[in-house]
Amino acid sequence: MIITLIKGVDTQKLALFTGWLESKSIGVHVSESNGQAVLGLIGDTEALDTELIRGLDIVESVTRVSETFKCVNRRFHPDDTVIDVGGVKIGHGHFCVIAGPCSVESEEQIMSVARAVKAAGAHMLRGGAFKPRTSPYDFQGLKDEGIRLLLKARRETGLPVVTEIMSIADLPLFEDVDVLQVGARNMQNFDLLKALGQTRKPILLKRGLANTLKELLMSAEYIMASGNENVILCERGIRTYSDYMRNTLDLSAVPMLHELSHLPVVVDPSHATGIARMVPPMTLASVACGCDGLEIEVHNDPPRALSDAKQQLTPEEFAALMQRINVVREAVQ
Amino acid sequence: MIITLIKGVDTQKLALFTGWLESKSIGVHVSESNGQAVLGLIGDTEALDTELIRGLDIVESVTRVSETFKCVNRRFHPDDTVIDVGGVKIGHGHFCVIAGPCSVESEEQIMSVARAVKAAGAHMLRGGAFKPRTSPYDFQGLKDEGIRLLLKARRETGLPVVTEIMSIADLPLFEDVDVLQVGARNMQNFDLLKALGQTRKPILLKRGLANTLKELLMSAEYIMASGNENVILCERGIRTYSDYMRNTLDLSAVPMLHELSHLPVVVDPSHATGIARMVPPMTLASVACGCDGLEIEVHNDPPRALSDAKQQLTPEEFAALMQRINVVREAVQ
Amino acid sequence: MIITLIKGVDTQKLALFTGWLESKSIGVHVSESNGQAVLGLIGDTEALDTELIRGLDIVESVTRVSETFKCVNRRFHPDDTVIDVGGVKIGHGHFCVIAGPCSVESEEQIMSVARAVKAAGAHMLRGGAFKPRTSPYDFQGLKDEGIRLLLKARRETGLPVVTEIMSIADLPLFEDVDVLQVGARNMQNFDLLKALGQTRKPILLKRGLANTLKELLMSAEYIMASGNENVILCERGIRTYSDYMRNTLDLSAVPMLHELSHLPVVVDPSHATGIARMVPPMTLASVACGCDGLEIEVHNDPPRALSDAKQQLTPEEFAALMQRINVVREAVQ
Amino acid sequence: MIITLIKGVDTQKLALFTGWLESKSIGVHVSESNGQAVLGLIGDTEALDTELIRGLDIVESVTRVSETFKCVNRRFHPDDTVIDVGGVKIGHGHFCVIAGPCSVESEEQIMSVARAVKAAGAHMLRGGAFKPRTSPYDFQGLKDEGIRLLLKARRETGLPVVTEIMSIADLPLFEDVDVLQVGARNMQNFDLLKALGQTRKPILLKRGLANTLKELLMSAEYIMASGNENVILCERGIRTYSDYMRNTLDLSAVPMLHELSHLPVVVDPSHATGIARMVPPMTLASVACGCDGLEIEVHNDPPRALSDAKQQLTPEEFAALMQRINVVREAVQ
Repeated sequence: MIITLIKGVDTQKLALFTGWLESKSIGVHVSESNGQAVLGLIGDTEALDTELIRGLDIVESVTRVSETFKCVNRRFHPDDTVIDVGGVKIGHGHFCVIAGPCSVESEEQIMSVARAVKAAGAHMLRGGAFKPRTSPYDFQGLKDEGIRLLLKARRETGLPVVTEIMSIADLPLFEDVDVLQVGARNMQNFDLLKALGQTRKPILLKRGLANTLKELLMSAEYIMASGNENVILCERGIRTYSDYMRNTLDLSAVPMLHELSHLPVVVDPSHATGIARMVPPMTLASVACGCDGLEIEVHNDPPRALSDAKQQLTPEEFAALMQRINVVREAVQ
Repeated sequence: MIITLIKGVDTQKLALFTGWLESKSIGVHVSESNGQAVLGLIGDTEALDTELIRGLDIVESVTRVSETFKCVNRRFHPDDTVIDVGGVKIGHGHFCVIAGPCSVESEEQIMSVARAVKAAGAHMLRGGAFKPRTSPYDFQGLKDEGIRLLLKARRETGLPVVTEIMSIADLPLFEDVDVLQVGARNMQNFDLLKALGQTRKPILLKRGLANTLKELLMSAEYIMASGNENVILCERGIRTYSDYMRNTLDLSAVPMLHELSHLPVVVDPSHATGIARMVPPMTLASVACGCDGLEIEVHNDPPRALSDAKQQLTPEEFAALMQRINVVREAVQ
Repeated sequence: MIITLIKGVDTQKLALFTGWLESKSIGVHVSESNGQAVLGLIGDTEALDTELIRGLDIVESVTRVSETFKCVNRRFHPDDTVIDVGGVKIGHGHFCVIAGPCSVESEEQIMSVARAVKAAGAHMLRGGAFKPRTSPYDFQGLKDEGIRLLLKARRETGLPVVTEIMSIADLPLFEDVDVLQVGARNMQNFDLLKALGQTRKPILLKRGLANTLKELLMSAEYIMASGNENVILCERGIRTYSDYMRNTLDLSAVPMLHELSHLPVVVDPSHATGIARMVPPMTLASVACGCDGLEIEVHNDPPRALSDAKQQLTPEEFAALMQRINVVREAVQ
Repeated sequence: MIITLIKGVDTQKLALFTGWLESKSIGVHVSESNGQAVLGLIGDTEALDTELIRGLDIVESVTRVSETFKCVNRRFHPDDTVIDVGGVKIGHGHFCVIAGPCSVESEEQIMSVARAVKAAGAHMLRGGAFKPRTSPYDFQGLKDEGIRLLLKARRETGLPVVTEIMSIADLPLFEDVDVLQVGARNMQNFDLLKALGQTRKPILLKRGLANTLKELLMSAEYIMASGNENVILCERGIRTYSDYMRNTLDLSAVPMLHELSHLPVVVDPSHATGIARMVPPMTLASVACGCDGLEIEVHNDPPRALSDAKQQLTPEEFAALMQRINVVREAVQ
């Protein structure tokens, strides 16, 4: 149920009202839009008397919502969410480019890439420390050492760091990490989502390989319903029968997610295409249809990368792309 | 086999050489790139002596190609193809917006829409006369009367017309039509493709619902191998499990088709999304990743349209979108 | 609208009633179930007065149907349809195995295979004369000569013949063919379907590569609404991301099509898997879930076949499989 | 690398040889086929001198394998694996039916169902205690209480129990559970797979919603490479655009997995179809194509089930199906 209150509502009356709702085991999610408070009610709202609530002097309108997602729903929270990551903002016009190597491989490598992407204008640094690999015999990441190196790169460049978490047991290692990424394969690892919901860390939630937008939003709902509102959605390509590309980038997800939800949406063109020379056109397309940010893989020496060698840009290619991103952003504003 | 000749090749020697090849039942496709002639050889080239050809004084280099597509292949024809439709060009920087209703419904309707899209800057007029419908009980189009109305709209506005052909038997009715469209469901109707290959009409070939890029190119190859080089490729969304949208627009097809082939590539965001308000962002994304044109549905009264009511823009929405298309085109040039 | 009449309805009254309906431009499809006539009404039945019809003394019950498919619908025609192909029956317990080579290649080949599959117990002979091939450079079939050879094989073995038609223009060549096959790529070639609807030939309609069951049934509806009730549905695998197999055989289509429609359903395990050694297990699975027949590729010398070499059984493998088919059929009856 | 030893190999020489291999950090997987020992070598075998090994008097043949999966590979382990679950065997002709409710809901419910499926001939009892649900607001299972009830049902009926584990943290609760199920959504939760690899519990590994057979086998490889050889593979339907059914049951996975791997393969027709009346035909089809077992949902009162109400059989339907399973098993043996 969504309750829009009158403008300039009396805060005391509002507190009384939300207290009454909570006494009935109804969760209340308060947001504001155009100077009006909007209450999103979560729980068993069947028993509430709509007419009675509509009659209250602080209430402007009441709408019953049958949609299965609530916290993530734009109807519950009409304004765009802006997430603040150590001073870097994302959402509602704040555009954020996350760049860095697929995997952290060595101190020299991550430092070199971090400096390069910083110089080119990136806002955050990515790098995989724990790597989900289809084969148990492939490089699994530097793990805690990888996180240590990322944090060192942050100290030098000032860029907040984004890295993937695969297991609840590893959470303590991520204490100083700025954004925790949930990979496509873990999008419906519900226990991990609940655990992340109990932190206040920004979560970058990637869409699963064959998941619908509704399922992506329900996974975000798992995090938010556990108390963490800092969720960034990420489209990274879905699995189809299309040839030549690793995945099929579903860009129409960007405007549709913006319509359904208030959360920021970023695009990862590197995993979506799997081919470095396809990254620039798909990056510009992502910007043109309104994404709030990008996650782009950059490596100092792509052919020698320990994972995803074919899809990583060189620092020079990334710097050139950043120029073009800015031009397209201005064009679509 | 691809043979690149030296710059400023002697035309008499060239004629002798191609004559010799043709005497061996080898088809020769001549194109030019950077002032050098490039010969694409089609047929049983196994028996040709590569070393002997490489030794000729008019030959710069010889490459054996094992790829299954030939005429459509950029390696056979390094420069972009430009197709001229009654003075309107498409390809290699010539950008072309095709707009109009899903179906031609009445004289008043098509005239009104034609004037509106012309005023907004469209380059060609689309309108379905023969309509492929999943159900035999749905509106099947005005047929020959629809074509007559399209031609009338062309006379008044000067816009070349694009309309779908479903059957070889209807070919005589399309004699004055400028561009013949092959719909997604007929992409592998090989007899139709061969028949269209025997005309010299520009063909707008839409990608099938679940077809790969290779299959799309092989269908273009059917048309070209039959003698018609005027093929425009069209990405219009593929069928996946993605929810909310009618199809999944596979925009990475645009740069990949450009890499594989010299043919122009247009995008149809209307059929891809099936939702009018998703058309603008996906249009801009298409432009940003380098498409050569667009096919956009515009109707004077969308809610009363006889087909695809939900996906057609109003003339006003289309005019506003044309402005934004031009801004993004400039940004990505 | 579906009208079930009383048992032993007076035929004169029935004729009066159907004449009245037809005078209102309502098509009437009469079938019988358990000794009761069932009328399926097609056309604009909105204007009919349900209460008035229900009140007629020859009427037992009236049901409004909103489903989009009518002629194919089991609700319109509760009993299984049995199709008679020159004395060979299919449907409602009549099981039919169609076997033969992918393509007719020579007189010797088709005669040899025809004799072998006949000896093994096949009921009909298949063989492609017109071949839909992704590449224009691949073998396109022997065409009219292929049909002549098939008919010769029929004369010798007595097996009715099944072969694919790709174009309306070829219809005269198929005059003596017993069953006309519509391939997966032409499942939504609506003009072809309408033309076939004007014949009385049994049509074997293959499901398209990415088509839903509803779309398959709507394509059958095109044939039936044009007047031809002899439609056999065929599941032959759909395109997915599954590896190792050419297509994904969607066997649950068999019981679901039986629930939705009264038409017979056959399975083509050869095209579905693309691998000869996978044909026996998938054949037995098809039988176990209730298919009415099978289409299996058999070649006298698979490795030298001009098309689909990897998926064709030898005559010996086919004979062994026929034994197993019979055992499983008995087990599931 | 695969090394086949001579028949009747001297055990002392064999021990010397495997000791030498292990001293070079090569893992050795010993299996037996037709009285001959087969060694599967895992690790960096590049450095081994094939000719030298081939020359040893205990060696019959040496094959280099480039396939990415090793422990699961039939080439490493030519004979079918048989897994023993508290006396109930599965694989190599030992057929195993796992039946029970989607979720454990109450003592009365699980006891009633357990007795019924035992009486009908089921070999193991399934029941979800921890439930992965798309929505955080749906019933999440009785958790530890659910496991307690399952174990109580085992004590009464003697049926080993199968239940899903979603999180490593829950492992201690599963100490007495017989078979741990990994659900489709966790098929690539690699940390969970590694943790299960460190137990010796039989693992029922379900194929992910959009995962290939190769990925399923690589996930089994994660478990086996960690030391646990007791893996049962499960096909449960993949996500496609097919309508009417919840998923598309990919039955050709059964014979293909048997070709690629020595592990037993079971089919879950309940989740694959999502419709109770489709379970019997798809069950029989699964048996006919050679599965080693089935997982079938049975509920004492399906319409009131707390999850998956539409797909659960009644005890009576299950008992009737068991009869038919046995008849088809005999037919295909």
